[in-house]
Amino acid sequence: MLRGTMAIDARGHLVIGGCDAVKLAQDYGTPLYVLDEAALRERAREYRQAFSRYLPGSEVIYAGKALLNTAICRIMAEENLALDVVSGGELYTALVAAFPTEKIYFHGNNKSRQELAMALDHRVGRIVVDSFYELKLLQELAAARNTVANILVRITPGVEPNTHSYIQTGQFDSKFGFPLGTKDTLAAIEAADQMPNLRLWGLHCHIGSQIFGLESFVTATKVMVRFLAEIKESLGLEIMELDLGGGLGIRYHDGNEPPSLGEYAKALGEAICESCTELELPIPKIMVEPGRSIVGEAGTTLYTVGSIKDIPGVRRYVAVDGGMADNPRVTLYQAVYEACLANKAKDEPKELVTIAGKCCESGDMLIKDIMLPPAEPGDVLAVFATGAYNYSMASNYNHLPRPAMVTVYKGMSEIIVERESYVDLIRLDRVPPRLTTSTETLAGKLT
Amino acid sequence: MLRGTMAIDARGHLVIGGCDAVKLAQDYGTPLYVLDEAALRERAREYRQAFSRYLPGSEVIYAGKALLNTAICRIMAEENLALDVVSGGELYTALVAAFPTEKIYFHGNNKSRQELAMALDHRVGRIVVDSFYELKLLQELAAARNTVANILVRITPGVEPNTHSYIQTGQFDSKFGFPLGTKDTLAAIEAADQMPNLRLWGLHCHIGSQIFGLESFVTATKVMVRFLAEIKESLGLEIMELDLGGGLGIRYHDGNEPPSLGEYAKALGEAICESCTELELPIPKIMVEPGRSIVGEAGTTLYTVGSIKDIPGVRRYVAVDGGMADNPRVTLYQAVYEACLANKAKDEPKELVTIAGKCCESGDMLIKDIMLPPAEPGDVLAVFATGAYNYSMASNYNHLPRPAMVTVYKGMSEIIVERESYVDLIRLDRVPPRLTTSTETLAGKLT
Repeated sequence: MLRGTMAIDARGHLVIGGCDAVKLAQDYGTPLYVLDEAALRERAREYRQAFSRYLPGSEVIYAGKALLNTAICRIMAEENLALDVVSGGELYTALVAAFPTEKIYFHGNNKSRQELAMALDHRVGRIVVDSFYELKLLQELAAARNTVANILVRITPGVEPNTHSYIQTGQFDSKFGFPLGTKDTLAAIEAADQMPNLRLWGLHCHIGSQIFGLESFVTATKVMVRFLAEIKESLGLEIMELDLGGGLGIRYHDGNEPPSLGEYAKALGEAICESCTELELPIPKIMVEPGRSIVGEAGTTLYTVGSIKDIPGVRRYVAVDGGMADNPRVTLYQAVYEACLANKAKDEPKELVTIAGKCCESGDMLIKDIMLPPAEPGDVLAVFATGAYNYSMASNYNHLPRPAMVTVYKGMSEIIVERESYVDLIRLDRVPPRLTTSTETLAGKLT
Repeated sequence: MLRGTMAIDARGHLVIGGCDAVKLAQDYGTPLYVLDEAALRERAREYRQAFSRYLPGSEVIYAGKALLNTAICRIMAEENLALDVVSGGELYTALVAAFPTEKIYFHGNNKSRQELAMALDHRVGRIVVDSFYELKLLQELAAARNTVANILVRITPGVEPNTHSYIQTGQFDSKFGFPLGTKDTLAAIEAADQMPNLRLWGLHCHIGSQIFGLESFVTATKVMVRFLAEIKESLGLEIMELDLGGGLGIRYHDGNEPPSLGEYAKALGEAICESCTELELPIPKIMVEPGRSIVGEAGTTLYTVGSIKDIPGVRRYVAVDGGMADNPRVTLYQAVYEACLANKAKDEPKELVTIAGKCCESGDMLIKDIMLPPAEPGDVLAVFATGAYNYSMASNYNHLPRPAMVTVYKGMSEIIVERESYVDLIRLDRVPPRLTTSTETLAGKLT
């Protein structure tokens, strides 16, 4: 159950990155996202090492949509990873964090004119083009700037991995990219190559998320290499770069058994080498785009237990001070999480309970059916593997302020995202003068 | 298809509240939430009139979790509605807007000590108590303040309406309230009555959301009145107030046929009168808590069309500049919406398309299969009935800034929530000094 640097100390407290989780909850309040920086860095290094070994010259690109803030950008920059951004907002964050722009990949099925202009003006490494519309728009914008846009073209390879339908992205019926095997797609490659202000470096594909079987990755890789051969044959074009996307699954709970990064890199490496040898192609530069599989297991959310309710013969509900607002994955994807009581981590888990969130919505459950030691109000619940798609998808539903995030590292904890305040929640609210009351002023009401 | 004050002008533009939707999109940018203030106020009045007619002395409580900001609070106050808040953040918003505190109802299955203290200190009208834990905590906090907490006790009546399981709340296996028919629940009522610093005014129930059949409401009402009789018989207590919650469905699309507010109020009124007469009980003060059914259809979201993609023989994707970040209901509840092209509202809808959002996630679809006039980049798409659970559940997923919200009223438009900026997205980010680069400073990087 424990991950990364986690341990249990003599008092039975969960310790992450050398910091007592119970003390973190006291010091910073809850809910609190805790990021195990050593585990995060270790995973980033493991990725680079595995891919360097099996695919020399390859590049590992952190997919920022899993979790992005200025501190994470700095950590990824220090670990020599590239960065995948999917919007002007993510690009802005990377720029503020002084992330090397030549190592930024800009994705998205519907980038705006303003976002593409921003990407060109800041000279991002690659823009991953998704449609004819974008090809033309980008050519226009690059020409107006008298510059060249360095692009990849996104292809949907028609490979459907066994995962939640919301996060399958490789099938032909997709909003993303150009479907492989149509003459439109070959025409897009040709057009991209011929547009004077675009430089076509490579192709991109992404088959989905939270995938455990390596076969889908291998199949997609082979399909893409065959397409490189087809392009060479039809258009006489030698494509230099192949971005195979992300999607490797992580261990949310004991039932998940992801392959190791070595197995993953080896499988991709072998598939590339075999296919390229067979088709007499040079081996292209390979990129992968892990997000969840870098940051997911490094994150833990701490909550405080409040109300505990028995419904006789039915269920015991243990309610915590967060829920679907800080972790929407349970309601969105029926995701299954593991947890422990951070202040009773040595106690025997002998009660079957359901962890309820505090949102006014029945669906706001964090974990249905988990064995825990007997819980009491004030206990600290630690939910594991919340690093990816938790903060990044968090809302202010029910006007719950978003939690703070801290890194823990060698016994030291540091804030990397401040907790929202009530004032934050209304900072953008405006009341037209005709709606203000005559007897009371709004400002200074709550001093 | 058109709702509220909507009309189509001579140029074929959608007009809301007397304002050209195409011009709103130009003036304020997109995505943009547009609130038809006349329709909103009309609906609030219709609620009050229907309930005054069939249940004199009743109270209509706007459920803020559907959509809450300071301007909405002012509008609801002007319309003499009470307000249901579910967190300290919602209460704070109401206080800043000078909403009359005696008309505030405070809900939640796991209110914190701080939230309950805040409710007591600001003398909210009623605190709806959800558990034994909360009863004790509230007694302790009220005693420490030498004050009395005015409470309702939340009951789960065991009525399961036909709606999405996430938004069914009346069943016994629920994180909310005390299940009816157990001796614990009667004990809770007795305890609440006897605690010296609590004053028990009534009971509350809520059976679910987006309900079309009046039978479930009638059944729940009768079940609750029978429980009032049981309480009177067992404990000698006469309960004065009965809050029947919200949950009335709205017309998201033509397939939805909600009853009128008159039918709804009449059904509840008759059920109350019959049951009370039969059981020889005085008629209690009745409250209802509509959220969605007040604000839902008054809201419209405007988007700009970007990329359009044909997958031959499969589907045409029309992508817009928003999606699951501003409207998570499609991915969460498989919600179905209607829409039109606001700049081509008179044109014949002759193309079957799918509306895709711009998030990097396959599930980010706004409408699967809708007939529209031929769409082009730059068209303005208006999605209807987005007033409830859109802004309130919105996230910054993919670092998309949350849209602005404007009211439209008699040809005038006014900002009530400002659009988020890129700077807003990183305002809480902190980079520990050890992670800053030596050669570049983070501040002022993007001046």
